[in-house]
Amino acid sequence: MPFEALEEASKKYVPLIDSAIFEALRGSPEELYRASAHLLKGGGKRLRPLILLMAARALGGAEAEPRALPFAVAVEVFHNFTLVHDDIMDNDDFRRGIPTVHKVFGVPMAITAGDLMFSLSFLSIFDAMKAGLPETYVNKALRTLAEAARKVAEGQAHDMLFERSWEVGPNDYLLMIYLKTSALIEASAKMGALAAMAKDEVVEAIGEYGRLVGLAFQIRDDILGLFGDPSKTGKPVYSDLRRGKKTLLVIYAASRSQEARKLLEEVFSGNYNEEKLKATADLIRQTGALNYAEELANSYSQLAIDKLVTLRERGYIVDEEAYEVLKDLAVFSAQRDK
Amino acid sequence: MPFEALEEASKKYVPLIDSAIFEALRGSPEELYRASAHLLKGGGKRLRPLILLMAARALGGAEAEPRALPFAVAVEVFHNFTLVHDDIMDNDDFRRGIPTVHKVFGVPMAITAGDLMFSLSFLSIFDAMKAGLPETYVNKALRTLAEAARKVAEGQAHDMLFERSWEVGPNDYLLMIYLKTSALIEASAKMGALAAMAKDEVVEAIGEYGRLVGLAFQIRDDILGLFGDPSKTGKPVYSDLRRGKKTLLVIYAASRSQEARKLLEEVFSGNYNEEKLKATADLIRQTGALNYAEELANSYSQLAIDKLVTLRERGYIVDEEAYEVLKDLAVFSAQRDK
Repeated sequence: MPFEALEEASKKYVPLIDSAIFEALRGSPEELYRASAHLLKGGGKRLRPLILLMAARALGGAEAEPRALPFAVAVEVFHNFTLVHDDIMDNDDFRRGIPTVHKVFGVPMAITAGDLMFSLSFLSIFDAMKAGLPETYVNKALRTLAEAARKVAEGQAHDMLFERSWEVGPNDYLLMIYLKTSALIEASAKMGALAAMAKDEVVEAIGEYGRLVGLAFQIRDDILGLFGDPSKTGKPVYSDLRRGKKTLLVIYAASRSQEARKLLEEVFSGNYNEEKLKATADLIRQTGALNYAEELANSYSQLAIDKLVTLRERGYIVDEEAYEVLKDLAVFSAQRDK
Repeated sequence: MPFEALEEASKKYVPLIDSAIFEALRGSPEELYRASAHLLKGGGKRLRPLILLMAARALGGAEAEPRALPFAVAVEVFHNFTLVHDDIMDNDDFRRGIPTVHKVFGVPMAITAGDLMFSLSFLSIFDAMKAGLPETYVNKALRTLAEAARKVAEGQAHDMLFERSWEVGPNDYLLMIYLKTSALIEASAKMGALAAMAKDEVVEAIGEYGRLVGLAFQIRDDILGLFGDPSKTGKPVYSDLRRGKKTLLVIYAASRSQEARKLLEEVFSGNYNEEKLKATADLIRQTGALNYAEELANSYSQLAIDKLVTLRERGYIVDEEAYEVLKDLAVFSAQRDK
C-alpha cells in the first residue's frame, strides 16, 4: 500500500488536530464563529498541520507534540482563512463539495470571518507557552507565521497580476507559487522544529524541506487541474483551462509553442467548447509541458527527501516513525492523484 | 487655543509616524504595496499611534520612543487594514476625500492589500527588538495586538448583525463599540506602556484609559454622524441616517419613543427625503438622545483623565508634556467637532 506511514499518521493525528481546531474556533457572535468553522468542517487534507506535527516529533520526540499542537491549529486556521478570502476573490461557489463561506453567510461576514481566523491563528501560537514552550521559541513561531502571511498576500497579488499578462515565464511562476503556497508549508515545518526547540540551522534545514514539498505539491496541483481524473480530484475535466489559470503547464506550453499560446489565449477569453478544451490539453502535452512538470515536481520531492536524510545522518532525527511520515509526505506531494 | 498640547504633539509626531509607516509599506509586487499605502496617504488623525507614543513617553520618557515607534506603525497599519475591508463590506466609494482602495484597485486586490497590512502590522512589532526592547515585552505586544484583532472582527460582526434587528439596547451597543473601535485604542495605550517596559498593573491602568477614550471617541463619532457640521466633518448632513447606521442615538431614541422607532424604520428602509431626515433628527433630539450621548462621552472622557491622574499620583508619569497630550486626547475624543 502506498503512503502507508502517511495514512497511519493521518488516521491518528487528524482527529487530534481537528478537535484542537474546533476548540479554538469558539466565541461570540455565534454566526461569525460558524462562518469561521464552515470550510474547516468540510474537510481537507490537513497537510500543513501534519507536516508541522511530524517535524516536531521527528526532531523533538513525543514530548514536543503538545507544544506543537497549538502551532498546528495556527497554520491550518491560517490556511483556511486564505481559502475563505480566495473564494470571494474568485467568486467560487463550491469548495470541498460544500458551498463556500460567502455563498452561505454573504461577502461581508465571509471577509470578517477570514479576518477573525487570521487573528485566531496568531492567538493559538501563545497556547504553546501553557504547554511549556519558552517565550523565545514562541516569538520565533509568531515571526515565522507573520512572514509567511506577508508572502502569501504577495503571492496572491502576483497570481492576480499574472492573469493580465502572457509575459510570464516559469521562473516568475516558481516565485509566485513559492510565495502563495510553499511559504506556508515551509513555515509549518519550521514551526514544528521550533516546538521541538531545535537550533536555528535545524529549523532552516527542515524549512527547506517544507519549501520543496510545497513547490512539488503545487506543481502536482497544476498537473491534476489539467490532466487529473475528475472522479478522484472532484473537479471537472480540464478544470484549470475553464478557470483560465496560468499554471506551470500553461506557461511552459505558451512559451514553447506559438500555436499553443494562440489556442490558450482563445480559451482563456472564454471562447471554448469541450472539443477545443481537449485539443488544447493535447497540444499542451505535446509541448512536453506534462513531462517537464512531472520531472520538476519529482526533483523537488527528491531534494526534500535529501534534506531529511542529511538531518538524520547528522543525528537530529529522534523519532523514526515521524521521519517516515515526512518522507511519505514528500513523495505524496509530487505523486498524489487527488 | 483648545487642545494646544495635542496640536503641538501632532505637528511633531505625525511626520515621524508617517515616515515609519511608509518605510514599512515597501515591497513587491508594487501594485499590492501601492494599494496598501493608498488610504494611509489620504491622511487620518493618527489617533492610535499618537496615544501609543504618548503613553510610551509619559511612562518611559524619551528613551521609550524608538522602542514604541514600530508599535505605533503596527496599530495604524492595522487600523487602516480594517478600514480597507470595511469599505468593501459597506461598498463605500470615498474615504478621507479620496476613492476607496477597492474602487481604485478592484475588490480582489483590496482584500489582499488588507490581508498584507494585517501581516505587516505584526511584522512591525518585531522591529522593537532592534531598538532594544526585551523579548518578553515584544511577546506581550504581539499578544495585545492579536487579542485586539480578534475583538475588532467580533465587533464588526456584531455591527453587521445589529443591522438586521431593532432588538438592540444601549448595552449591546456599548459592547459592540468596545470591540469594534475601543479595543484597538486600548491596545495602543497598552503597547505604549509595554514599549516603556511598564509593569503589568500600569499596562492595565493605561489600557483602561485607552478603552475609555475609545468609547468616548466612538460616541462622539455617532453624535457628529447625526448632528455634525458637514463643513467640518466632510460628511453629508444626517450622514448616519442615510446610511441606516444603528448608532447610540438611534438605539436610544428607538427604545424611548415608538414614534421615533417607526420613523427610523421607514428611513432605514430607504424611504426618506431631506424633510423626513430633518424630522427624524429633530425627533431623536427630542427623546433626549443627544444629551444622553454627550453626557456619556464626557463621563468616559473624565474617567479616562482620572486614570491618568491616579497614575501620576502614584509616581508613574515621568514626562509631563506627554501626560498633558494624553489628557488633551481624552477631552478631544469626547468634544471634537471633526
